[in-house]
Order: sequence, then C-alpha cells, then structure tokens
Amino acid sequence: MKCKKCGGKAVLELRRHNAAFCADDFRAFFRHHAVETVRRWRMFTRDEPVLVAVSGGKDSLALWDVLIAEGYRTAGLYIDLGIGAYSRESKAKCEAFAAEHAAPLHLVAVAELVGAAIPEVRAATRRPTCSACGLSKRYIMNRTALERGFSVVATGHNLDDEAATLLGSTLRWDASALARQTPVLEATHPKLVRRVKPLFRLSERETAAYAFLSGIDYIVEECPYARGATSITHKEILNRLEDASPGSKASFFLNYLDRARGLFQAREVVELRACVRCGQTTTGEVCAFCKLGDQVRRTARPSEPVPADRGDAPELRGLISDLQAAAEIHAP
Amino acid sequence: MKCKKCGGKAVLELRRHNAAFCADDFRAFFRHHAVETVRRWRMFTRDEPVLVAVSGGKDSLALWDVLIAEGYRTAGLYIDLGIGAYSRESKAKCEAFAAEHAAPLHLVAVAELVGAAIPEVRAATRRPTCSACGLSKRYIMNRTALERGFSVVATGHNLDDEAATLLGSTLRWDASALARQTPVLEATHPKLVRRVKPLFRLSERETAAYAFLSGIDYIVEECPYARGATSITHKEILNRLEDASPGSKASFFLNYLDRARGLFQAREVVELRACVRCGQTTTGEVCAFCKLGDQVRRTARPSEPVPADRGDAPELRGLISDLQAAAEIHAP
Repeated sequence: MKCKKCGGKAVLELRRHNAAFCADDFRAFFRHHAVETVRRWRMFTRDEPVLVAVSGGKDSLALWDVLIAEGYRTAGLYIDLGIGAYSRESKAKCEAFAAEHAAPLHLVAVAELVGAAIPEVRAATRRPTCSACGLSKRYIMNRTALERGFSVVATGHNLDDEAATLLGSTLRWDASALARQTPVLEATHPKLVRRVKPLFRLSERETAAYAFLSGIDYIVEECPYARGATSITHKEILNRLEDASPGSKASFFLNYLDRARGLFQAREVVELRACVRCGQTTTGEVCAFCKLGDQVRRTARPSEPVPADRGDAPELRGLISDLQAAAEIHAP
Repeated sequence: MKCKKCGGKAVLELRRHNAAFCADDFRAFFRHHAVETVRRWRMFTRDEPVLVAVSGGKDSLALWDVLIAEGYRTAGLYIDLGIGAYSRESKAKCEAFAAEHAAPLHLVAVAELVGAAIPEVRAATRRPTCSACGLSKRYIMNRTALERGFSVVATGHNLDDEAATLLGSTLRWDASALARQTPVLEATHPKLVRRVKPLFRLSERETAAYAFLSGIDYIVEECPYARGATSITHKEILNRLEDASPGSKASFFLNYLDRARGLFQAREVVELRACVRCGQTTTGEVCAFCKLGDQVRRTARPSEPVPADRGDAPELRGLISDLQAAAEIHAP
C-alpha cells in the first residue's frame, strides 16, 4: 500500500476515499479537510476567538490541535462532570495538552452551576443520564462563551457521531431534533452563540488515527455511563452498513443535509425568550437547566459508585495497534 | 400464557401489543386490524371490485383470505415471472387457493408483455433483478386492472416490508422514493388505478401466523434472486431494533406517515403523460417498461440457471414450529 501523495509506505487506508496515506500526508489531509469545512460552512474566521469544548477524548483534542496548527485564535473549555476517575483523568489530559501548546483553558464544573456533579444528578432525576449531561454541557458551553467574550463554540463531533444521532432522530421521526441537526447552529438570539462542528465530515476512525499519529495523549476510555446507550447500537448499525458499502455513513448524513434538512427546518419555528431565573434562552418561563438544578436540590440522594472504565472500542483498538506496527516499521 | 380475549390457552404472544391470543381470537384480531385499515384509510368499499395481487406467499394469500372472509368483491392476479420451479410452485399455490375459495384468478405472464421471463430479463439488462422485476409487476398490475375494470389493486405488503423500504430510502434520503411511500397511492391520472396495502400495520410474523393458523397453503421459499438483497439487510437491522425495543418498527413507519411524509410529498410534483408506445403513464416519451422490453429484445442472451430455493427465513421457521406445537396441544 503506497501513500497517494508521496508514494512512500502508507500507514492508513481510507476505503471510502479510495486512498491510502503515510502518517505525515494523512495528517495534512485531515487538517486540510477540517479547515476546508470551517471555510465552506462559514463556521468562523481566523480573527474570531473560538471556544473549543474539550473532553480529553481523541475528537475534541484532535480538533483543538488542528485549529492551533492552522493559526486560529482558540481557547479550550473543559467541563468537569465530576464522574470519578473518568473525569479526573480526562481533565488531566486537557490540562497537559493546553500546557504543551501554551493555550488558554477555561475550567467549569457542573457541580458549581447545577449544585451537584453528574453522578448525583443521575441519582436525583429520572431523566436518562446522557440527556441530563448533554443539557448541562450545552448550557455551560453557551453561557461560558457569552460571559467570556466568544461568539462561537466548536465541538469535536465526528461523522459517526452525527450519523448515529441522525439515525436515532430518524427512527423516531423526531421533527424538532431533525430540524436542529446541523454542523452550524446559528445564533438566533442575542443570548446564543454559534455552535459549530468542524470535524463532521471526518469519521471516528480518521479522528482516532489523526490523534494517534499526532502524538496526542487522549483519554481512551469512554464515559462509564455511556454503556448500553442506544447511540452505541446506532453506531454499530451504521458500521455494519459501512462495511457492506463504504461511504454509506457519509452519504446518509451528507444527503440529509442536502436534501431533507431544509424541509424540517422550514417547519420548525421556535420562539425563544430569556429564562426568568438565569437569563439564558428558553421556550418557556424557566429554562430546562434551572429546572434540572431545582430537581437536584429537591431530591438530593446519595449517588451510586461510578462504574469502572471499560476501555477503548474494539474496532479502534485494532486501528491503533495497526498504526503502532506501521509506525515501528517507519522508525528511523 | 392466556388469550387476552377468551382466557383460553394462547398460541401466540404479541409483545408490541402486550397481548396473547388463542388461534381463533388471533385470526379475528388480524382480520379486524386489516378491515379497520381498509376503512380508515379509505382504501376501497365493499361494493368496489378489488384486484388482489397474489404471489403465492403468505402475505398476499393472507390478504386475499381476509378480504374474501369479510365479504369484499375480489379477484386475484397472479403475475408469472417465469423463475423456474419457484414460479411453477407459487402459481400452483395461487390456483389451488382460488379453486378452494371459488374466486376468480387472472393470470398474466411477464414473458407475454416484455418478450422474455425474468431470468432472461436479468441476463439482458444491467439493472438489478429486483428493480426490473418490481417495475414489471407494477406495470402489469396497473394495466391489468385498467383493462379488466378494477379501480383498485391491493398488495400484501406488511409492516416489515414497508419499514425496510423506508429505511432504504431514508439511508439514501431519496426524496422521490420517500414521497411515494404510502399505504394508499391515489390514482393521479386516468390511466392509473389506486394501489393500496391493507396489511401495512401488521408485521411479517403476524401475517405468517395468520396464514398458518388459517390453514393457507403458501409457498415458503422466497424468490431465489432475492438472496443478498439490501432489503434483507434492512429487515435484519429493524429486527434487531425491534428485539431491543418492541414496537420500534411500527413507530418508525407510522411516525413517518404522521410527521414526515407530507413534507416530501408537498415538494414532489410529477407531471405524467401517456407513453407514446403503450399508452400507460410515464414522465418521459416512452415508459420504463417499454424501454425494458427494447433492451431485452436488443441484447437477448441465454439466462443462467435459476439458483435453488433456500427455504424459509429462520425466524419464521421457529414461529411455525411453535405454532404447530401449540396447535397439537389444542387438537381435540
């Protein structure tokens, strides 16, 4: 297998692009892809300060790495969910990355704003953990960006994430969720900042390879509460379709953007106003985040121990050991 | 497990309805479900002559059985595809059913109209076999109904068929296919007849159980060319989701009808005119069926032997043996 660019030995094959690359040319390909996405989708300019939401995982640190390397004005935002060892380790990865790149990192803990960390929120509400956690993260991203002068927040969502979310919304035909799924969520209210996903056209396998080949030290474990999440079933289904027909994951998501998203968006008219308690946006009187805080305070209950980590996804484990083997061959 | 209706011993559990039935009450439930669908979706009245497209399989013979039992004015239409032993056996099943119920059966062969049977069509065109066959069947259904005085054609498509087709169209976001997927395709042109699917809310497992418990002698084998069809992958994916969460197949398809179909239909404006060759409808000059005939005549090539039958789907085999066991217990 030869690198499509330089003709040297390739370390990675990309079936859907019908191409293979050596480490350096793959990293250049990946960065070019991300930067082109930022430009074509008018996500932000090089002058605009961007808050990059980092979890310590491969996707968000790969995104931050690309944006720093390409000369964008970035700062990181780490949201501490307080999920035991998982959160301690992921925070340390983000701090180390920021220190290594001399980049500013903002730290905000869910516990400060909601009154309890995610394990206690989980114990206090009947809401699925991923849903309460997602709500908290979106709220904190937006509020932190507003308060600290950023007009745009970038997240590390990759193609697999977006396709799995789309599959879930489609299986329910949840018209509101379908209308909202876009790589650029514009600020439609003075209290909202733009939210963008520069990696949405790159697959999970590609972001994992980029992070590994760039020497990024990321947290391999996924959140212990994500186990058994339906999004994982949806990712497996999409991987099966992708194996049978390379490119089907991308065509599912990109064709949605081209052909169907507009139909759902046109119908979705949402009137936003300021939450009477915190001033952030809501469709009602009190926003969902403030209500979550109320519920946690009302029904404070001791949380169960956080489940142990379960390690990396099997398909990515194979990729990383393949890349390690290929890299050894190339060692000088 | 007790019958929800009579309290007797149940032979079949329906998880998504949270109910179980004895043989007689299940058959009554099934017929009621089908008749209610015909009524609510205004598919046809008891005075209107209905052409029921029968393949010899469980779904279409179950549909014909229900409509006869419920006093509708029906005739069968068997389309002979000329696929070796599979077609000979399925035709014999339809003829035996018609004779047993003293019901009229129309026979039309693809070879008469297209100039060759499906194995030769398969050899002559690059089009996928299922696509050329589906085109031929839809053409023959419509033309036969028009020529023989039926204003409506009913087909045996069940919930699994419809959900799998919908999943396929959705994964491609094929807006035209999405717009056309409906249980009632109205006659939008004088040369079109209404096409309806009275079993679209009943699952494949339910139609198999109905056919077995009603003593219908149907062909168990599926078409030998269907092997490896993507629709089978899509059915497997939906079965997996259904196992994880009973009712998800129905909610996928029924929510589509409620919440999304209108958006795609509103955008789809198709102007139909008469084919200059055969007079049936087309969007161009010459209809796709006439073009298929041209292609077959131009490139007549000997067909390969028809593959051997592969037997019933494994999940239905289990169902039928369970029902056999339950029925023996109930034998007088």
